[in-house]
Amino acid sequence: MQLSTLTGRLDERLDTDSYADVDASTNGLQVGPGDLARTGRDSSPGVDHVAFAVDAAAATIEAATDAGADLLVTHHGLVWGGLDRVTGREYENVSALVENDLALYVSHLPLDGHQELGNAAGLADYLGLDADTREPFGSLGPVTIGQRGRASDAYGVAELRERLAGLDTGGRDPHVLDFGPEEIRAVAIVTGSGVDWLGEAAEAGVDALVTGEGKQQVYHEAREAGVTVFLAGHYATETFGVEALADLVSGWGVETTVLEHPTGL
Amino acid sequence: MQLSTLTGRLDERLDTDSYADVDASTNGLQVGPGDLARTGRDSSPGVDHVAFAVDAAAATIEAATDAGADLLVTHHGLVWGGLDRVTGREYENVSALVENDLALYVSHLPLDGHQELGNAAGLADYLGLDADTREPFGSLGPVTIGQRGRASDAYGVAELRERLAGLDTGGRDPHVLDFGPEEIRAVAIVTGSGVDWLGEAAEAGVDALVTGEGKQQVYHEAREAGVTVFLAGHYATETFGVEALADLVSGWGVETTVLEHPTGL
Amino acid sequence: MQLSTLTGRLDERLDTDSYADVDASTNGLQVGPGDLARTGRDSSPGVDHVAFAVDAAAATIEAATDAGADLLVTHHGLVWGGLDRVTGREYENVSALVENDLALYVSHLPLDGHQELGNAAGLADYLGLDADTREPFGSLGPVTIGQRGRASDAYGVAELRERLAGLDTGGRDPHVLDFGPEEIRAVAIVTGSGVDWLGEAAEAGVDALVTGEGKQQVYHEAREAGVTVFLAGHYATETFGVEALADLVSGWGVETTVLEHPTGL
Amino acid sequence: MQLSTLTGRLDERLDTDSYADVDASTNGLQVGPGDLARTGRDSSPGVDHVAFAVDAAAATIEAATDAGADLLVTHHGLVWGGLDRVTGREYENVSALVENDLALYVSHLPLDGHQELGNAAGLADYLGLDADTREPFGSLGPVTIGQRGRASDAYGVAELRERLAGLDTGGRDPHVLDFGPEEIRAVAIVTGSGVDWLGEAAEAGVDALVTGEGKQQVYHEAREAGVTVFLAGHYATETFGVEALADLVSGWGVETTVLEHPTGL
Amino acid sequence: MQLSTLTGRLDERLDTDSYADVDASTNGLQVGPGDLARTGRDSSPGVDHVAFAVDAAAATIEAATDAGADLLVTHHGLVWGGLDRVTGREYENVSALVENDLALYVSHLPLDGHQELGNAAGLADYLGLDADTREPFGSLGPVTIGQRGRASDAYGVAELRERLAGLDTGGRDPHVLDFGPEEIRAVAIVTGSGVDWLGEAAEAGVDALVTGEGKQQVYHEAREAGVTVFLAGHYATETFGVEALADLVSGWGVETTVLEHPTGL
Amino acid sequence: MQLSTLTGRLDERLDTDSYADVDASTNGLQVGPGDLARTGRDSSPGVDHVAFAVDAAAATIEAATDAGADLLVTHHGLVWGGLDRVTGREYENVSALVENDLALYVSHLPLDGHQELGNAAGLADYLGLDADTREPFGSLGPVTIGQRGRASDAYGVAELRERLAGLDTGGRDPHVLDFGPEEIRAVAIVTGSGVDWLGEAAEAGVDALVTGEGKQQVYHEAREAGVTVFLAGHYATETFGVEALADLVSGWGVETTVLEHPTGL
Repeated sequence: MQLSTLTGRLDERLDTDSYADVDASTNGLQVGPGDLARTGRDSSPGVDHVAFAVDAAAATIEAATDAGADLLVTHHGLVWGGLDRVTGREYENVSALVENDLALYVSHLPLDGHQELGNAAGLADYLGLDADTREPFGSLGPVTIGQRGRASDAYGVAELRERLAGLDTGGRDPHVLDFGPEEIRAVAIVTGSGVDWLGEAAEAGVDALVTGEGKQQVYHEAREAGVTVFLAGHYATETFGVEALADLVSGWGVETTVLEHPTGL
Repeated sequence: MQLSTLTGRLDERLDTDSYADVDASTNGLQVGPGDLARTGRDSSPGVDHVAFAVDAAAATIEAATDAGADLLVTHHGLVWGGLDRVTGREYENVSALVENDLALYVSHLPLDGHQELGNAAGLADYLGLDADTREPFGSLGPVTIGQRGRASDAYGVAELRERLAGLDTGGRDPHVLDFGPEEIRAVAIVTGSGVDWLGEAAEAGVDALVTGEGKQQVYHEAREAGVTVFLAGHYATETFGVEALADLVSGWGVETTVLEHPTGL
Repeated sequence: MQLSTLTGRLDERLDTDSYADVDASTNGLQVGPGDLARTGRDSSPGVDHVAFAVDAAAATIEAATDAGADLLVTHHGLVWGGLDRVTGREYENVSALVENDLALYVSHLPLDGHQELGNAAGLADYLGLDADTREPFGSLGPVTIGQRGRASDAYGVAELRERLAGLDTGGRDPHVLDFGPEEIRAVAIVTGSGVDWLGEAAEAGVDALVTGEGKQQVYHEAREAGVTVFLAGHYATETFGVEALADLVSGWGVETTVLEHPTGL
Repeated sequence: MQLSTLTGRLDERLDTDSYADVDASTNGLQVGPGDLARTGRDSSPGVDHVAFAVDAAAATIEAATDAGADLLVTHHGLVWGGLDRVTGREYENVSALVENDLALYVSHLPLDGHQELGNAAGLADYLGLDADTREPFGSLGPVTIGQRGRASDAYGVAELRERLAGLDTGGRDPHVLDFGPEEIRAVAIVTGSGVDWLGEAAEAGVDALVTGEGKQQVYHEAREAGVTVFLAGHYATETFGVEALADLVSGWGVETTVLEHPTGL
Repeated sequence: MQLSTLTGRLDERLDTDSYADVDASTNGLQVGPGDLARTGRDSSPGVDHVAFAVDAAAATIEAATDAGADLLVTHHGLVWGGLDRVTGREYENVSALVENDLALYVSHLPLDGHQELGNAAGLADYLGLDADTREPFGSLGPVTIGQRGRASDAYGVAELRERLAGLDTGGRDPHVLDFGPEEIRAVAIVTGSGVDWLGEAAEAGVDALVTGEGKQQVYHEAREAGVTVFLAGHYATETFGVEALADLVSGWGVETTVLEHPTGL
Repeated sequence: MQLSTLTGRLDERLDTDSYADVDASTNGLQVGPGDLARTGRDSSPGVDHVAFAVDAAAATIEAATDAGADLLVTHHGLVWGGLDRVTGREYENVSALVENDLALYVSHLPLDGHQELGNAAGLADYLGLDADTREPFGSLGPVTIGQRGRASDAYGVAELRERLAGLDTGGRDPHVLDFGPEEIRAVAIVTGSGVDWLGEAAEAGVDALVTGEGKQQVYHEAREAGVTVFLAGHYATETFGVEALADLVSGWGVETTVLEHPTGL
């Protein structure tokens, strides 16, 4: 499949354009050649093998190259708020991509917010929240970047912690701010760095907020709101989206590899 | 001592004005009465007992009240980016202050950046960095909010982790991203949430960055820069500043209490 | 009636949300407790008695307290452009509200612009402008904050001044910039501080603009445009809205008191 | 004297450049020809007669023309925040200037803030405030636009009102918000529209704020701060500056006329 | 026809309002009197003769006056980004308009973008692009300011240059950056200064971009994209719009004159 | 010489930092590796051969590679206003740099404004302007980007045009807007795209402005100001700066090559 065809399909499926104004990440193709028919060079290159990873970094670029991929798809990319220069760390990673003929496609908030393929949707599946109770959660301007729903059978706090410990945590246990009810049915999810939505979670009346990494201020906010917060790890909560994309692309007849590099954060 | 005299002295000592343009926190007196001589009411009230805590929250307001304080001094306050309303959590905490005749004084970045009284300076003392190697670190516009220096005797990674585990961590172990040299001499410190200064740390050529809480992106940045990052806890690294202020105020002949409420974050 | 129910009804009736981007005033509940079921405290408190006033200030907070109110509804509140601190005058007034268990609900531009309950609508009624000639006037971005219409029987200038002198002016006569036609039929109204809409009034071809307080520049603008301006007092032209809200709330079965405190401005 | 020489001298004396960032008014030459030596036309025209008025408007342009002036100097000009078009009222006034070969020079905030020639300085003279107690008052970013000082012999409230009634009020009495002490010694002055500096006046501990026009909100602010506010009229308090400029220009050997057109506002 | 009627018709036909947010030019009536019925003066003046020119400048104002026009309609006006002062060049030109009772109406981007009357549409006609292949080109926020289409018979590069040399070039030959195919069928047009749309032209797959004036950066952009760029002159490519307006106004029964003043740029 | 040493010297000599706030170009090292001692890789690479060109583009990257350079220094770079993506044209050029181990250093406005090494200074030398009459010209916020001075022997217009035709114009004659005096002594220079400084040139009283490329609006501005404008070509006027840098670097003992690729613009 041509690179431009593949990235076009992903952009459409993930509704990339809708997140342009609220995301510091450049979404879509971040590094790679375009269609260049006019110049006599070949048009957009073919893609035979796509690697998927949570983070674009030296480690995953190397792993994707070793796997023989010509496209790397990640949730966290290399460009945040634009590049002023291609020097230092950016030069190292861009030049590694160039030298290995590896293109980079990134989907940050579009892959958080997607209600089927997204990180929160995948974690909601993992926690077994009832499909017909699911609704978008985590407002960011005109979009949402999370999901909430209810479990038919209530979790106890320890039980839910245990379930989350089964994620790819890099060996670091989930941390719990145990300020809510003992039985947890209604759960709000914003993967990655989601404690800023504690207020929205409290207003929505959920029993718990599940997210990845914490910030100091959420401790007292949770304590005063009476909501339990599970910090299960930024990486650990965000493997779902790229795995879902791997399935999607695999279904288009392209070879895929999912790369694991947990950070413990 | 009159409240206005005491807060005036703190503002001067901490150079509060210099941080006004870069800090989302309102620094100085956040909640409390002013001088009102004109109106026939008494002027600024007297302060007999000052409580100190890292966070202004329901728990610390209650503890300060129990201690008999009439002023609470904290590093994290109640007003970030201004208040649109005094409702919800803000109403609960402001009304608790009002009903208990407790004023609130806040020093956020000024207390991070102060090179003697500040959080980073205190942590540098705790780590035994040589006084004559210390210099300001952690640029934020025109100010700095951290400190760096060298230890005469090199730390091993495990040894430095152990030392940091002695802080008030709320029972949660320091986390280490061990990507730097085995012997650690040059250390950069930004307490609280300081991983955004990893790049400055790498440029400065330090062996390790010590901070409080982490973010996902620092993993690969540290790995690629070859710098070890110690995440010792946001709360745990920020008790130094308020303790130094307690000593200062105590020296002015006012009774003081230091409140502990570790968050584990 | 629960506080949250009552403020919710007011917000809906006054279309509070539509004015959020153009009003420096925080509209809706400005000071007061929210629903806090999660924390084990009681939920939103009950409201038995609502006081209404043009201005939120020490005088009206005291009067509302004396009247036994648990909610004060005003047109001008305490928060304009957000609060950086709760100190000085803000501390005095917020603490008076807290200590007297009095909540504060504010409706500024929504109560100017409402075409039935609003200040301009009430003043148009008082002046006897024909109902079927009324239309929104006073554009401010996407909303309007006044009303215009025609009187079946023309007013003379002195006659209209006399009629306006019957308002609650605090003893200060209306001031007239008499530059328009002798007979006044078409009248534009922006209550309070409305002389910035003189240009819109001239374009609309009205005979007179009726507003509250003046500004120097309107003198020559009115003279050159040939429009008569009536300055009837900021307070005097803005009692209509809160009186209409008192009627509304009274109809919901809640006791109400309208407080008068004319400013002469 | 050449027009460019005269306006250059005024700009220098009034320190026009220092107010550029805080004043919506374009200060300096607003309408008129420049030096055009290159084009073969004569260079900057000569000025034989300068008229002075508080406001630039049809009435004063006509009066200046009748007086035979070729330059009109005013405190309030025609350009506020820039002109998008020269149409409507702006066309009428600009074309009247052009057709009568009358240039327009404007000094707004520079003429409020000047500590000798300015409006507040002139009013302080009129009120007999002691020269050695005078200091700048009325902060607006990096500049000040008023003055404060003390009277050796205290005024009573009625006495000060009487003194202010002697200004060119257009027949409208000064209005007093009588919330301060009976004896008035320390007085802050911001002419024109100055009630926004009530807070600074209260902090400075003055007995009274003297200004021109009022706004609704100052009533309760003054009441709660215990400061008396005198509203003596925007026009009435701002004749001092242009009169001082007339003296200055007269001293340069140019004929001058001071035009009076009180607005009663 | 009354001035206000004529300018109203033009604004409607050209959809002036739609370009307000993206155009630095003030479009519509820039200099001239408005309806002033209220003031006893006559209402909007009558227009008997309209002159049309590409640029508003001393030369065209003089020529329009000589032709006996009372309205000048131009593509480039006198106000870009607002006027702070009416001095220097602006004074010379505004006063020439005033003294000759000549109003100025400007249509900048609306006249570039109009798909029938506009500059690009007129140039597309001149080049004989097929009517049914035409579509809007040249995106600028929500509007477009050019047109593209195909020629049934392909042009050679020299042939197209020859055709463009027939425009009113002021004697300066078109310049060609010959980096595209030899046969030119698909052509994108942005008149005036249009090289910033080279990227959009390349994406659209056209053979050539035709515009007026060049900028250094387009050389390598065109070379790398393989698109030929014709620089036919800013003035030369922008006579079409005002000529079309002259026809339009002539059809309303008003006398018209088209003024030519090529700039060679 | 190490790359980081060489670019550090250039930054210091050209005062790169002073232009950071006014230049859309990223100045300094735009593409290339940094010091990476920490990571175990070698530190900043050595530079043996530096190529210099006006523009960074496919053509000059190829020529620099053919010349055996490991650093390309240009006046116009690849990054303007930051990069959102490294795709399309940016990918082609960045990947060409990477694959050929060629770093890119850019100096845009610093190289226009430098009073000895800069483009305008070089052109002033070429025109023989007297050294002791030279002064900075062409204000852009806090910096200047041109130079002005006087020729001892006056030029005639044709003579100066002839002199400018001797530059590397790519075969396109200089264009003259001949509206000033016949004898040209005082000359202002802003190379590249400098017609926006026509007004400053007129105020400075020069006889002619010499720049590179034109814009439509300068025709009437020059005509009305009575200043002659020489448009000698953007490329042609901007070879001086990079040539001066080549001499400088050559003096540091590094091999240099100056690449010529005139654009005719």
